[in-house]
Amino acid sequence: MSLDPPVPDPAADDGDAVAVLAANAAYYEAFEARDLEAMSDAWEHADRVSCTHPGWQTLRGWGAVAGSWFALFQGPQHLQFVLTGTRVEVAGDVAWVTVDENLLDSGGQAPGGGAGDAAVGGTVAALNLFVRGADGRWRLTAHHGAPVARQG
Amino acid sequence: MSLDPPVPDPAADDGDAVAVLAANAAYYEAFEARDLEAMSDAWEHADRVSCTHPGWQTLRGWGAVAGSWFALFQGPQHLQFVLTGTRVEVAGDVAWVTVDENLLDSGGQAPGGGAGDAAVGGTVAALNLFVRGADGRWRLTAHHGAPVARQG
Repeated sequence: MSLDPPVPDPAADDGDAVAVLAANAAYYEAFEARDLEAMSDAWEHADRVSCTHPGWQTLRGWGAVAGSWFALFQGPQHLQFVLTGTRVEVAGDVAWVTVDENLLDSGGQAPGGGAGDAAVGGTVAALNLFVRGADGRWRLTAHHGAPVARQG
Repeated sequence: MSLDPPVPDPAADDGDAVAVLAANAAYYEAFEARDLEAMSDAWEHADRVSCTHPGWQTLRGWGAVAGSWFALFQGPQHLQFVLTGTRVEVAGDVAWVTVDENLLDSGGQAPGGGAGDAAVGGTVAALNLFVRGADGRWRLTAHHGAPVARQG
């Protein structure tokens, strides 16, 4: 994973923004490593969680979301993310990150949909929503990824 | 606009969930009516707002988001929304709605991308993020729409 310097919200407490960005980075590191335990650790385990993989219907509840990560990590794709345009906003115990996921496969090429998912590849505009738990840790409660249509 | 009975989060104060659902409905009513003033009223006017129209890059800041609505409402499409799977979550002064936007054009047909945007049509999985202002009103601070790939 590589990322350009993110822009913390100047109105937010810097420590919060830094902690949210660390949680966001942990999510992408777990994804790249296909590490189910780390991915599980990045998420809130609750009925309210939701996840919209690019091109998919929205999955609701931690059980359905966990199942999707299990299936994805069993699949053939080894994605790498070049993250650009990262922005973080914090409001109380909720925070959200908007970021462009520029996807590369492990050979450094944009994947051509070879995994059978036409919506994967190129750039995905993501909105990652985090909540702060009673233990002070930020965890994902919603991930929403939308494929950006190619220009031209 | 038609909508199936939404499912308020039982953990949230019911009044909050109802108010958020009303704000969510106002957004779609403004969209269907192509009413720029009502759409402007539905949004927070702040640098932190973001909007990802299906297939678009994420737009950031109220100026860019407002400009997109102006352009969309000048265009030829008259969309109607059949909203399904509406879920609302409230956490303090932040709330989010996940919903499936089933798009119909004014003739009752799914639009065929005739407006030049291949990503518009069919079903869009949306995440709408609201913040409560000092005046107690809920306003959109982020809208994120992802086209759901057709099955089969």
